Amino acid sequence: MHNAKPLPNYLVQRFHGWKATTFADNKAWYKRLADEGQRPRAMVISCCDSRVHVTAIFGADQGEFFIHRNIANLVPPYEPDGNQHGTSAAVEYAVTALKVAHIVIVGHSSCGGVRGCHDMCAGHAPELEEKSSFVGRWMDLLRPGYERVKHIEDEAERVRALEKEAVLTSLQNLMTFPFVEAAVKSGDLSLHGLWNDIGEGGVEQYLPAENAFKPI
Amino acid sequence: MHNAKPLPNYLVQRFHGWKATTFADNKAWYKRLADEGQRPRAMVISCCDSRVHVTAIFGADQGEFFIHRNIANLVPPYEPDGNQHGTSAAVEYAVTALKVAHIVIVGHSSCGGVRGCHDMCAGHAPELEEKSSFVGRWMDLLRPGYERVKHIEDEAERVRALEKEAVLTSLQNLMTFPFVEAAVKSGDLSLHGLWNDIGEGGVEQYLPAENAFKPI
Amino acid sequence: MHNAKPLPNYLVQRFHGWKATTFADNKAWYKRLADEGQRPRAMVISCCDSRVHVTAIFGADQGEFFIHRNIANLVPPYEPDGNQHGTSAAVEYAVTALKVAHIVIVGHSSCGGVRGCHDMCAGHAPELEEKSSFVGRWMDLLRPGYERVKHIEDEAERVRALEKEAVLTSLQNLMTFPFVEAAVKSGDLSLHGLWNDIGEGGVEQYLPAENAFKPI
Amino acid sequence: MHNAKPLPNYLVQRFHGWKATTFADNKAWYKRLADEGQRPRAMVISCCDSRVHVTAIFGADQGEFFIHRNIANLVPPYEPDGNQHGTSAAVEYAVTALKVAHIVIVGHSSCGGVRGCHDMCAGHAPELEEKSSFVGRWMDLLRPGYERVKHIEDEAERVRALEKEAVLTSLQNLMTFPFVEAAVKSGDLSLHGLWNDIGEGGVEQYLPAENAFKPI
Repeated sequence: MHNAKPLPNYLVQRFHGWKATTFADNKAWYKRLADEGQRPRAMVISCCDSRVHVTAIFGADQGEFFIHRNIANLVPPYEPDGNQHGTSAAVEYAVTALKVAHIVIVGHSSCGGVRGCHDMCAGHAPELEEKSSFVGRWMDLLRPGYERVKHIEDEAERVRALEKEAVLTSLQNLMTFPFVEAAVKSGDLSLHGLWNDIGEGGVEQYLPAENAFKPI
Repeated sequence: MHNAKPLPNYLVQRFHGWKATTFADNKAWYKRLADEGQRPRAMVISCCDSRVHVTAIFGADQGEFFIHRNIANLVPPYEPDGNQHGTSAAVEYAVTALKVAHIVIVGHSSCGGVRGCHDMCAGHAPELEEKSSFVGRWMDLLRPGYERVKHIEDEAERVRALEKEAVLTSLQNLMTFPFVEAAVKSGDLSLHGLWNDIGEGGVEQYLPAENAFKPI
Repeated sequence: MHNAKPLPNYLVQRFHGWKATTFADNKAWYKRLADEGQRPRAMVISCCDSRVHVTAIFGADQGEFFIHRNIANLVPPYEPDGNQHGTSAAVEYAVTALKVAHIVIVGHSSCGGVRGCHDMCAGHAPELEEKSSFVGRWMDLLRPGYERVKHIEDEAERVRALEKEAVLTSLQNLMTFPFVEAAVKSGDLSLHGLWNDIGEGGVEQYLPAENAFKPI
Repeated sequence: MHNAKPLPNYLVQRFHGWKATTFADNKAWYKRLADEGQRPRAMVISCCDSRVHVTAIFGADQGEFFIHRNIANLVPPYEPDGNQHGTSAAVEYAVTALKVAHIVIVGHSSCGGVRGCHDMCAGHAPELEEKSSFVGRWMDLLRPGYERVKHIEDEAERVRALEKEAVLTSLQNLMTFPFVEAAVKSGDLSLHGLWNDIGEGGVEQYLPAENAFKPI
C-alpha cells in the first residue's frame, strides 16, 4: 500500500520558514489552541478551487473558521441513511459539537464543478452522466438549479447564474437538517451566501429581501 | 427557504481591507488566474479543523493548492455506486481534470473527529453509533484503524496513533481509485502523508521505508 | 571549435545526488512541467553575482520564476533597431508569450558592475571607457544614475545609492517598452524594485509614495 | 516613472522564513561573502526558463556559480562595436575580473526560444521575422544552427537537435572572444556544453571526441 513519498523539499523549507517566524511569534496562541481546543465563530463551506482562499479574503487567523471545502461548495440535503456523507458530517459537527454562530457558503467565478454541471445538463458532457463519474454524481445536486437558469440566453451569464444557484441550493439544503433548522429558528445560528469574483476581487452576498446577490 | 442574513460587519470590513491591500497589490496575478484558470501543483486533503491552515504552514498563495477539507482528512475507498461521494469527486477532479502532481494528506493533533471515532469504537459514544449520526457513519471509515491501535495502553498515545492511522487509511484508500493507481504507477502523481502537531508547530511525514512518521 | 571538456567530477556526482533524491521525489511535477510547459507567475531580473540566489531567498521551486540574470540587473531602454538585445528579448518573451503577472528587479550590495560604473564615471577606470570594454559599454546604461548620486560625499553610501539607481533605471526603462506599459496600465502586470543586502540577509523594496527603499 | 508596487505578501513571508532559517544558520558565510567578495569557481550560462534551476541540479550554494541567464542560453560572437552586449559583458566580467575556471553552457528540452527560432526559420512565424521582434532578432544567432539540422525529418527530433545546436553555437562563439581563447589555451579556463531533459531529469554533455551529447 504505502506509496507515500517524502515531501518536496521546497515545502519542507517553507515549513521551517513558517515555524521560525509565524509560529515562533505566535507560540502562546498555538499552545492555547492546542490545549483548550478550537472554538471557531463560523463554519465556511467553499470550493476546493486553488484560487479561493477565504482565510486570506477575510483575514482569518488559525482558530477562527471551521472550513469544509468540496467541489462547488455544495451541501446535499439531509439524508440519514447510514451511508457516508462527508459534507453532512462536517455540518453536523460544526453545529452540534462546535456550536458555530454562522455558516457561510462561498461560491465563486469560473467554477469548474459548476461548469461541468452546466455542460452535463445541456447534454454536452456525456462522460459526466456515467454512473462511475464521481464529479457527475456530485453535481447532480445542482440539476434543479440548472432548470432555474437554463432560460438565460447568454452562456457566460447562465453559468454565472448557476454558480449562484449552487450557493442558494446549499442554503436551502442546510435548512433540511433538523439541527440546522432548530439553531436558525432559536437564533443561535445564521446562514450566509456569498459569491466571489476571482478576477475582480469582488464578493457579493445573497440578500433575501431583494432575492439577489449584491456587492458587500 | 432563504434564511440568509447579511454578513457580519467585521468580515465585511476585513474584506475591504484585503481588497485595498492584498488584492490591489496582486491584481495582475488574480486577473491571470481568472482568465487562464487554475493550475495547482498539488491537492491537499486536510481536516476542517479551524487550527490547521496548510496555506500558512506551507506559504502557499492563491493558485498553488487544490484543497479539500473534511472531518479527519479521510478518503473513502473507491465506490462508484452512483451515490454522492464528495471526497471522491474532489479526488477525481484533481487527478483527472487538473492532473495535480501531488496529493498530500494532512492529519493533525487533537482531532475531534478522530477522538469521536476512538470513543465510539471504545464503546463510550453510543450517540455516534446511531444510524442518523453523520459524524459516526463518516468515522466508520477509520474503524479498521482503531483495531490496529487499540492495544496501545496509554490513551493519549493511542489517540495520536489513531490520528496517524487516519492519514494511512486515506493513503491506502486513494490507491483503490483506478485513476489514482494509474497515475502513481506512471509517475504522474505522488502521494504524501503528514501529521501536524498544532501546539508544537511540528510536521511529521510518513516514511514507508521506516513504516513510521518522522519530523520533516 | 569544440573545445568542450567533460564536466568536473564533483558536479557529476552532485547531479546524480540530485537525480536520486530531489528529482526522484518530484518526478511527477517535473514530468508535468515538461509536458504542459512552464507557467511562471513572475519574471525576476537579477545580477549574475554568485551570491544572489533569488530562488533561495523567496523559496521558489522549479516553474515559479522566469529568471533573467545579467550584470547589475539592468534593463536597457526600448530600442527596436534590429540588433541583438538579449535582455529586451527576455522581457518581451516574459510579457507577451508567458504573460507573467510581475516583473521583479533585484539589485544587491557589493555589486561589481555598479562599482565599475561608479569608478568609470568618477574617472578612475579608464579601461572601462574603452570602446572594446563590454562591461563599460553595458554600464553606460547607469551613467544617468551616477549623475543623480555623485553629490553624496561618503563613498560607500554613494555606491550603495548607485546600486539602488540601477534598480530604478531598470524600472524606468521597462516602462519604455510599449508592451510593458500597456500591460501595466491594463492591470495585467505589476513592477517591483528590490535591493538585497548580502551580508545582512536583508531585502528592501522601492516604495514610490516615499520615493525610498524600505525593508520588507 | 515609478510604477513599482509592494512585493506580494506571500513572497515577503517566504523571505522572512528564509531569513530566520537558511540565513540565520549560515550567517558567518554570508558575512564573509559580503566582506571578501565573490570568488565563484564557474560561470553558468543557462536559459531564463523557470524549469531550469542549475543551482538545484548541481547543488550549488551561494557563492559558487556566476550565473547569466538569457533566452536559449546563447552567446553572441565577439563584436566590440561600442554597443550594449549584456551577454558579452557578463562573459568578460567572469573571465577577466573573476577569473572563473569553467564556463558551462546549459541548454534544455522544450525551449521556447529554440522552438521560436525553428518556426521562424521554417517560415511559420512571420511575426518573429519583424525588425521589432527582440526574440526574433536574438534568435537570429541560431539561424546557422537551423541550417545544420533542417534535414532531420522528424520534427521533435529536429527541434531537439536545434536545442543542442544552441549549446554548440555558444561554445563556438565563446572562442571568438580573445580573452576566452587565451584563457582556454593557457589552461586557465575550460568550456563545457550540457543539455538538460526537464521531464526525465537527465543531463547530457557534449563530448568533442564523439561529436555527440552523452548522458553524464
